[in-house]
Amino acid sequence: MHSIDFLQAEIERELSELNLGTEPANLYEPMEYILRLGGKRMRPLFVLLGAELFGAPYTKALKAALGIELFHNFTLLHDDIMDKAPVRRGKPTVHEKWNQDIAILSGDALFVKAGELMMQVDDEVIKPVMQLFYKTATEVCEGQQYDMDFGRLNEISREDYLSMITLKTAVLPACCLATGAIIAQASPADCQRIYEFGKNIGIAFQIQDDLLDAYGDNQKFGKRPCGDIIEGKKTFLFSETCQLLQGKEHLDFLSLYNNQEMHAHEKTIQVLAIFDRLGISSLTYQAIQHYFHQGIEHLSHIKTAPQQVMELRMFCEKLLLREN
Amino acid sequence: MHSIDFLQAEIERELSELNLGTEPANLYEPMEYILRLGGKRMRPLFVLLGAELFGAPYTKALKAALGIELFHNFTLLHDDIMDKAPVRRGKPTVHEKWNQDIAILSGDALFVKAGELMMQVDDEVIKPVMQLFYKTATEVCEGQQYDMDFGRLNEISREDYLSMITLKTAVLPACCLATGAIIAQASPADCQRIYEFGKNIGIAFQIQDDLLDAYGDNQKFGKRPCGDIIEGKKTFLFSETCQLLQGKEHLDFLSLYNNQEMHAHEKTIQVLAIFDRLGISSLTYQAIQHYFHQGIEHLSHIKTAPQQVMELRMFCEKLLLREN
Repeated sequence: MHSIDFLQAEIERELSELNLGTEPANLYEPMEYILRLGGKRMRPLFVLLGAELFGAPYTKALKAALGIELFHNFTLLHDDIMDKAPVRRGKPTVHEKWNQDIAILSGDALFVKAGELMMQVDDEVIKPVMQLFYKTATEVCEGQQYDMDFGRLNEISREDYLSMITLKTAVLPACCLATGAIIAQASPADCQRIYEFGKNIGIAFQIQDDLLDAYGDNQKFGKRPCGDIIEGKKTFLFSETCQLLQGKEHLDFLSLYNNQEMHAHEKTIQVLAIFDRLGISSLTYQAIQHYFHQGIEHLSHIKTAPQQVMELRMFCEKLLLREN
Repeated sequence: MHSIDFLQAEIERELSELNLGTEPANLYEPMEYILRLGGKRMRPLFVLLGAELFGAPYTKALKAALGIELFHNFTLLHDDIMDKAPVRRGKPTVHEKWNQDIAILSGDALFVKAGELMMQVDDEVIKPVMQLFYKTATEVCEGQQYDMDFGRLNEISREDYLSMITLKTAVLPACCLATGAIIAQASPADCQRIYEFGKNIGIAFQIQDDLLDAYGDNQKFGKRPCGDIIEGKKTFLFSETCQLLQGKEHLDFLSLYNNQEMHAHEKTIQVLAIFDRLGISSLTYQAIQHYFHQGIEHLSHIKTAPQQVMELRMFCEKLLLREN
């Protein structure tokens, strides 16, 4: 298996060589713009790792890896419109820099190009690769709609939260790893195992994002600290807190958390005090560990490549220990 | 070859049996809503006709036909947001009935389902069918962007108009017919001929739409007559008029046509007077005939099924004689 660094460099090289088109400029420039904003390129990396884990050369999976990165950027582009987000990675979002119509349409075109790249796998695996891609894309849309629906609710349960993030964010890393495995023609059982690993790891990543938003060293990356609390976003920490509080305390917490008029700093201090009193950060950390180990359990049944499995595990473990 | 009426009934039956999903309701209800608004279902019909023309049973092409109808509805959904259109087929548009975020996302999901349906063809033709689908989808996005770009220009040439409508509307019927032909495993030369037929017919249809907007019996279908003139839309009639006028007359016409503040009735009367003086309606009718015959020329080289070719020709001829 190639090193993570090497594979990441290959993804960046392939992305920089990608020629989407040029005219009309108002369609293609925003597509180039969002793709060049950077990012960890975790999803395409997972596609390549999935392929190498089961003995295929990563080159066989490179176009599909790019396809998933384009799909991910398409969802970011449209989500940013829905969230009215002015900034992504420190730069203006596409609907801010151009306009909303251009953001809708260049997102659509990015999704088209994503599918076109996904198709560039060996003929015998086109069908299963595309079926998984479409299944995942449907789930991601469902997850985004649940997220928007939840935004209008006062409270959501832990179960609601988990099904929402599974659809919105966790099925995509699962799809990435399984796409690599399908390209390598791994057995259906192994494809399923790596998929379940990816899904659980994806849940762990999202819960960690929620944790870092409240407790991470956000200054490092120029993020607004506690943005989720200020916006009243339905996070894991929020649903855990709801679960632990009762009666008046519960109701008071709900009106505090859902209060959009309150001064941001004051709201943050009050919410964090409740989180601290209930030990929410440590409960959340336990949940991350739980989903990580649940993922590892699936991974441990893959017998074909013990050394590679160990490397994948260590890579994910490192990602889950990051502090921002 | 089955009759047009029979094939249309089969499309309606298959559409009514289509189960997209139910939850979250805010995602799936808008998708159902736009699909059930009706329409002539011309595009799926062209897929079935393309298949039968080259000897495949229409049943082999039914899912792909639905896929293209879903794709078409996805473009309508997003175009309506960009055009700020309040009404489609006499009913509120999705962004009016729900909201804009829901219209963006349910459009995206409709596009996912479109691709999923397109894949449901015989394994040996999945790749060419999907490649043509993605190529066409890219072109439709490019055409929509050109249309938006042209909206901000004072004037466009006939060439600009023709390249824009070719991308925005004419490649889709071309893709439909060619998809049917690919499913029937017609020769590459015949696929190309039916594609070119569809493209020319598509151009003729769009020019006819432009003509009917100004000169058709719009009352019949509840359309606002001369909507294009009132909005200053860059139509075939507009670009022809630009071509024929010179000097001050040219400039006066441009400021009249692009005037958005003017009273609608007054503007319509003045623009129509110029069209009438220059004989624009008859020039436009000649252009429709020109593209129709150019299409027929391509069709005439298809030797496999003379009777079916004749029926397809007659069907399109009938559509091009409609008055609304």
